[in-house]
Amino acid sequence: MQDIIGQIESLTAAIEEKLVGYRRDFHRYAEVGWTEFRTASLVARRLQALGCEVRVGQEVVKAEDRMGVPDPDVLEGHWQRAVEQGGDEAFLEAVRGGFTGVVGLIQNGQGPTVGLRFDMDALGIQEVQDEHHRPFREGFSSVNANVMHACGHDAHTATGLGLTEVLMHLRDHVRGTVKLIFQPAEEGVRGAKSMVGAGVLDDVDVLLGHHVFSGWALGEMVCGMSGYAATHKFDARLTGVPAHAGASPQAGKNALQAAATAVLNLYAIPRHGDGATRINVGQLTAGTGRNVICSDAHLVIETRGATSELNDYMCERAVRVLETSARMYECELQLVPMGGAQSASSDEVLAERVKEVAESMGGFAFFPCSASGGSEDITYMMKRVQERGGLATNIGLGADLHGISRSAQEGREAVLSPHTAVFDIDERVIPQAVQLLACVVLDLMHRDRG
Amino acid sequence: MQDIIGQIESLTAAIEEKLVGYRRDFHRYAEVGWTEFRTASLVARRLQALGCEVRVGQEVVKAEDRMGVPDPDVLEGHWQRAVEQGGDEAFLEAVRGGFTGVVGLIQNGQGPTVGLRFDMDALGIQEVQDEHHRPFREGFSSVNANVMHACGHDAHTATGLGLTEVLMHLRDHVRGTVKLIFQPAEEGVRGAKSMVGAGVLDDVDVLLGHHVFSGWALGEMVCGMSGYAATHKFDARLTGVPAHAGASPQAGKNALQAAATAVLNLYAIPRHGDGATRINVGQLTAGTGRNVICSDAHLVIETRGATSELNDYMCERAVRVLETSARMYECELQLVPMGGAQSASSDEVLAERVKEVAESMGGFAFFPCSASGGSEDITYMMKRVQERGGLATNIGLGADLHGISRSAQEGREAVLSPHTAVFDIDERVIPQAVQLLACVVLDLMHRDRG
Amino acid sequence: MQDIIGQIESLTAAIEEKLVGYRRDFHRYAEVGWTEFRTASLVARRLQALGCEVRVGQEVVKAEDRMGVPDPDVLEGHWQRAVEQGGDEAFLEAVRGGFTGVVGLIQNGQGPTVGLRFDMDALGIQEVQDEHHRPFREGFSSVNANVMHACGHDAHTATGLGLTEVLMHLRDHVRGTVKLIFQPAEEGVRGAKSMVGAGVLDDVDVLLGHHVFSGWALGEMVCGMSGYAATHKFDARLTGVPAHAGASPQAGKNALQAAATAVLNLYAIPRHGDGATRINVGQLTAGTGRNVICSDAHLVIETRGATSELNDYMCERAVRVLETSARMYECELQLVPMGGAQSASSDEVLAERVKEVAESMGGFAFFPCSASGGSEDITYMMKRVQERGGLATNIGLGADLHGISRSAQEGREAVLSPHTAVFDIDERVIPQAVQLLACVVLDLMHRDRG
Amino acid sequence: MQDIIGQIESLTAAIEEKLVGYRRDFHRYAEVGWTEFRTASLVARRLQALGCEVRVGQEVVKAEDRMGVPDPDVLEGHWQRAVEQGGDEAFLEAVRGGFTGVVGLIQNGQGPTVGLRFDMDALGIQEVQDEHHRPFREGFSSVNANVMHACGHDAHTATGLGLTEVLMHLRDHVRGTVKLIFQPAEEGVRGAKSMVGAGVLDDVDVLLGHHVFSGWALGEMVCGMSGYAATHKFDARLTGVPAHAGASPQAGKNALQAAATAVLNLYAIPRHGDGATRINVGQLTAGTGRNVICSDAHLVIETRGATSELNDYMCERAVRVLETSARMYECELQLVPMGGAQSASSDEVLAERVKEVAESMGGFAFFPCSASGGSEDITYMMKRVQERGGLATNIGLGADLHGISRSAQEGREAVLSPHTAVFDIDERVIPQAVQLLACVVLDLMHRDRG
Repeated sequence: MQDIIGQIESLTAAIEEKLVGYRRDFHRYAEVGWTEFRTASLVARRLQALGCEVRVGQEVVKAEDRMGVPDPDVLEGHWQRAVEQGGDEAFLEAVRGGFTGVVGLIQNGQGPTVGLRFDMDALGIQEVQDEHHRPFREGFSSVNANVMHACGHDAHTATGLGLTEVLMHLRDHVRGTVKLIFQPAEEGVRGAKSMVGAGVLDDVDVLLGHHVFSGWALGEMVCGMSGYAATHKFDARLTGVPAHAGASPQAGKNALQAAATAVLNLYAIPRHGDGATRINVGQLTAGTGRNVICSDAHLVIETRGATSELNDYMCERAVRVLETSARMYECELQLVPMGGAQSASSDEVLAERVKEVAESMGGFAFFPCSASGGSEDITYMMKRVQERGGLATNIGLGADLHGISRSAQEGREAVLSPHTAVFDIDERVIPQAVQLLACVVLDLMHRDRG
Repeated sequence: MQDIIGQIESLTAAIEEKLVGYRRDFHRYAEVGWTEFRTASLVARRLQALGCEVRVGQEVVKAEDRMGVPDPDVLEGHWQRAVEQGGDEAFLEAVRGGFTGVVGLIQNGQGPTVGLRFDMDALGIQEVQDEHHRPFREGFSSVNANVMHACGHDAHTATGLGLTEVLMHLRDHVRGTVKLIFQPAEEGVRGAKSMVGAGVLDDVDVLLGHHVFSGWALGEMVCGMSGYAATHKFDARLTGVPAHAGASPQAGKNALQAAATAVLNLYAIPRHGDGATRINVGQLTAGTGRNVICSDAHLVIETRGATSELNDYMCERAVRVLETSARMYECELQLVPMGGAQSASSDEVLAERVKEVAESMGGFAFFPCSASGGSEDITYMMKRVQERGGLATNIGLGADLHGISRSAQEGREAVLSPHTAVFDIDERVIPQAVQLLACVVLDLMHRDRG
Repeated sequence: MQDIIGQIESLTAAIEEKLVGYRRDFHRYAEVGWTEFRTASLVARRLQALGCEVRVGQEVVKAEDRMGVPDPDVLEGHWQRAVEQGGDEAFLEAVRGGFTGVVGLIQNGQGPTVGLRFDMDALGIQEVQDEHHRPFREGFSSVNANVMHACGHDAHTATGLGLTEVLMHLRDHVRGTVKLIFQPAEEGVRGAKSMVGAGVLDDVDVLLGHHVFSGWALGEMVCGMSGYAATHKFDARLTGVPAHAGASPQAGKNALQAAATAVLNLYAIPRHGDGATRINVGQLTAGTGRNVICSDAHLVIETRGATSELNDYMCERAVRVLETSARMYECELQLVPMGGAQSASSDEVLAERVKEVAESMGGFAFFPCSASGGSEDITYMMKRVQERGGLATNIGLGADLHGISRSAQEGREAVLSPHTAVFDIDERVIPQAVQLLACVVLDLMHRDRG
Repeated sequence: MQDIIGQIESLTAAIEEKLVGYRRDFHRYAEVGWTEFRTASLVARRLQALGCEVRVGQEVVKAEDRMGVPDPDVLEGHWQRAVEQGGDEAFLEAVRGGFTGVVGLIQNGQGPTVGLRFDMDALGIQEVQDEHHRPFREGFSSVNANVMHACGHDAHTATGLGLTEVLMHLRDHVRGTVKLIFQPAEEGVRGAKSMVGAGVLDDVDVLLGHHVFSGWALGEMVCGMSGYAATHKFDARLTGVPAHAGASPQAGKNALQAAATAVLNLYAIPRHGDGATRINVGQLTAGTGRNVICSDAHLVIETRGATSELNDYMCERAVRVLETSARMYECELQLVPMGGAQSASSDEVLAERVKEVAESMGGFAFFPCSASGGSEDITYMMKRVQERGGLATNIGLGADLHGISRSAQEGREAVLSPHTAVFDIDERVIPQAVQLLACVVLDLMHRDRG
């Protein structure tokens, strides 16, 4: 392995600048979930150019398992924008309509299938226009209004491309299959389920994911992120009957009374003796005019649970509250799933293996993972692999732009927090991740075989 | 008629003392609704003794139309008391179990059937024990704990007996049928429906009721009370599942959460454009222990409406709220009707006829009737008669013990308000009512025939 | 008087076409409440041109008594539009910022002050573009998007200008003062209070208003509209504190929980024994994101009462519910009055006088007024006049475009209902109203003096 | 120590039968919290007879720190019963009025103060009368209706007396002070706080408590119970104004609407990111009559938290909800503390010491302690000792009557569950506990000194 590690190192060094260029290009043309038309088409083109077998669109994204997909006209508008912003024509048709997943395959001989997940979507945030903000200063801040890579998925995507290039160079060392999975719509935990639904994970023996963090210094690392909370995200629409509030209030079917009853009782769903649960109604929009009995209400809801079972408990109770509140006021109820994640944990044995490889590379400081309470939809993929007997881990990599270490940041607000308009990362994490993942993949394919 | 009026006057004068004695006896042995075992049995005996045809018990009270009947052991306990307090053995068996209605018939020749309603029940009030209170001072205050004739039904019953005696003396002048209807459980509007259900009103062409009022001076009179509000009175019982509130709150089905949701939404039932509505949850009793998820809740509810339609609107909405609140918390719901009254108004033409008779007798001051918002279950009887094409009126008669007139009392608290522990009346209203009703009955049977 | 009536008739006939032109001009450049910049400035110019003494802007509109005023930038945008659409430069500055009231005075000798109210604002409705719709067919439909005279205030304003012209011609016959009051923002009952607040009604002895109705045939008339319900219209804003719904829900101050608690309890405000009340929460908008504890909520509320006292009862209770709901969740509460009307009734003696005049003119069919349950903010003016001992009436005039009579329309949907996109009127009501009002004004100034 | 252990063993064996007799006597005359008049007076007498210094009543129970004390007439009735049932006259006066705490002191030379807590109260349960139930079969089941030792406090009290007797015999070996603390009202966590308030724990360096468990076999033992949840138990009374629900609903101040609003919002208090919380409204009793606006409501409430901070969070929010709900309906709110416990954990170092002593005695099987989620008010005492730098542990001892082991019972309903009418224990736990505690006390006083 040692010589392979050396080759990986030099191969990576050679493409470092290109990868940073990729990242900045994705950053500049940021696209939110299910509209990664330009991003996905360019990923597909580059994978193909490198000699990968490529699968795109409905082959790797199951239509009915997608959650929180924007309206068709929004999708179409963004697709047109992708055409204008240089999306690849050969692949744009395949991803049209919100099927923005890409899978690349590198196969050589017999051996395990190692999957690697890279998420590609940006957030609905207006990037700050300010000389203090490097992407603006250096001219690669988002040109798309209210869209910004503020969580590092641009770096993940660039890493995926870099990893492919390195491994294609070392293809002869591959023993089995490397499956490069580029996922849409991780924000809002909406996309992973649709790739699982399309069967993309059904032959994966080992799954690796990774995420960069602006609050940890470069080199700070968690080999197996765990304790992800399960979550359901869904919208509820109540439809009643309007009436004049002065002349005939009794003629109305008041969707707002139904919604208010639901809200109070949703928060009052009993706590569970087996562990932590959450519920939130983040938004409620109801009614048309002051003197009209409200005939429609729209609620934006999420449940969470420390385990998928606890989350399901919350969700079942929530649906019951919504159904009965609707019936109380003779309103119709429509429920629309908008996102979801499972509870999952990285396999310790695999995380340990990653750590050994990282130690051999040098330059890392290791942190154990503590449950964050957050959610990630790679958990759908992890659960699928784990329930088939495979192993999965999600790796955390520090990328603080100012080199501030994780412990120094503890207890105070991170300077460049994710999901804010000033987010940025230390781009050196990209070649570092390429190198690490390449080493881990080949280690997995070699070590146990001698 | 003029000579008949004279005869009525002297016949009444002759039994005046006896009637006051009857009233005081009923007052002393006051019995609440459905337990008028002693009262009803003595009424039946006296009617029979006067030569009336008498019907008692289930012949005149339909079991399943009774509302708000006490538990069987309560009924039985009160029945035993009636045995001890001198109830009439010949009739006690027929009224046992809560069938405390009596009907007497006086028939002679062809002619209309004139029904007269007298209610017999007392209230669940502990009579004051005080020298200022005449019933106590003169030794006829209630010997039954927490039961008191605080609404004058003792006087009504005595009046019914007096009227029977007078009319039996004048039986030859009767042309048609006089139907003397002694009703149980008017308080809580629980009894009238069961006599209507038994068909007692099905042959009545003209119905007369009367009520004495402590807030009007003797002689002050309303010939046709109107504007009675419709009402439904019912109990709701929610049954859930208990659970330990600390260890496993999720295992409970919380009847109190269901009840609280119901309470808020019951009061929030939309107002109605067609007129006044009301709802009240007068009592709520729920739960067993501090650390147990509440598994049962009992609500005591009433709805009202200016019309029966408005009342039905409220009741239907209330049932919907209760049913959906129960379902929200997976509780069982049991609804028990406890009372009810229709909206009804006296027929003006009949009230006018009563007024003419009263004018011919002299000694009355007439007041028009304004809607009180209160309820009376004679309305079930009135509606039955009216829907068959008959006429009905309910008469109000002043009986203030201190002779204070209605106008003088307006705007301030009545001195001897009904439904209070110090209620009392001017007993001269009893012979006055006997005389008036006898005159009206015979006038109805004679005038139009010459 | 008879010769004056004749003069009025011929003077009116001479300007009939011009008045229709005015109405169509106002219709074409329809402006919603507080933005009647063009309308008010043109009214002022024409009054001045006719020789009236004119008062405009803050002289006749009290800033702090205005309700439901749009945001400053909206006001300014509409003002710019008025400049472009031919508003009168001499007066535009005075009405800028939402002070769009105008008062004209015609004074001659000693005598009473007779006030006449004309409302000028349009509704936020997109007028139908359809050959069946006369304003479109004949080229005077609204050129302003989402603004339409769908309630006849354009006709009222034209009537006011016509009346001024007629009375200026007959100025020698005026004995006292005619006060022509052109009011902004009657829709939403937002404007009248501000003119009362500015003292405009303080010297008015007799107040006349009128309203045209598309559901009554021309000539059908109510001389004194009554039974207006009192109403308060206000917005409530709850401001809490956001927090991450998963990580630290306890850190939030949940404005949506506060709002839902308020909604349920607002509808549950007890009914009132003295008469009809209403409450409605017509709109609720709350929250920012699915996983954020909601930190702001905006409620759009109205109360109503058969009397001002009942309405005040509802409003006081509503404020209490809102205040305590806010405190329950530690939210700030801001209440903004958005409109209001008093309960008021026309003085019968004045309505009778109007009827006599109308009868002498001929061509009218009279209807009594029944309470509609609706609200009108001329009631603020009527109350002000009445509390000073003066008389007031609001007149209803039929103007159905197809000549369909009121009784024929009863029970079915009016063909050209007000507040709909197809509303239109029979314009002959304009000269008819001019003639009627001129006759009433001079009759009031002459008859009692011989 | 080894010879002392031998002496302890034989001393204990000698009094074994007497201690069982004590336990059965306390069982037969079971007394609920704050009414342990007979029990406490007999404890005091026996301590005194053994030569202890004894403190009783308000010396060791602070009046205002007592929670959930019954009404004075109830206290007095039970006190009279204690007189009749053989309470000790010398001490009955001191405990009268609900001051049923007793402290005994054994002092000898210099050394630490070791406190031992024994709780004395029974539960409000009617003991089963059945030959299968040993206390009934052997004639020592409770003679007091609805009171039963169903949690083993009778055994704890007997153990305390036995320990005193053994240690008095070994007084010369005592180095320091042994403080025997007999506590009232542990059930409902109501009594400990009052003894802490009286300063009883202020000089205690080491605190030992113990509890017997019917679900574990004799010898099964937890040396340091931990993870007790903090809890507040309190009642809320809402007082409004009654009114007639039909005639003038607006005149009422509806305590039931306030209570229902409170209930919904209490359960809806946000979950806390730092750990588990609970709330329960176990009982709600409200209202007087069906047609009366409810003017009073009584809520029985508890909060819990994994830590005292979390519990305080719940309690503060709950009080806010109650206060604002009361204000919403203009009701008065009265809050009465009824019980409480802190979160606390046994000190591991002390538990380890106990384990060493137990191991040297032999016959024990040790179980680690897992958090039960339950509450114990010894935690007030533990916190007091720990915050002064002392050590505390609460020991669990198996006493299953049928010898069924803890693991065998797991997952199914315990046969003789505590707080049920059939509870009973293996009385051999009493001498076992006496011996264990005596050994631990003397070990603590000797070992570290050589």
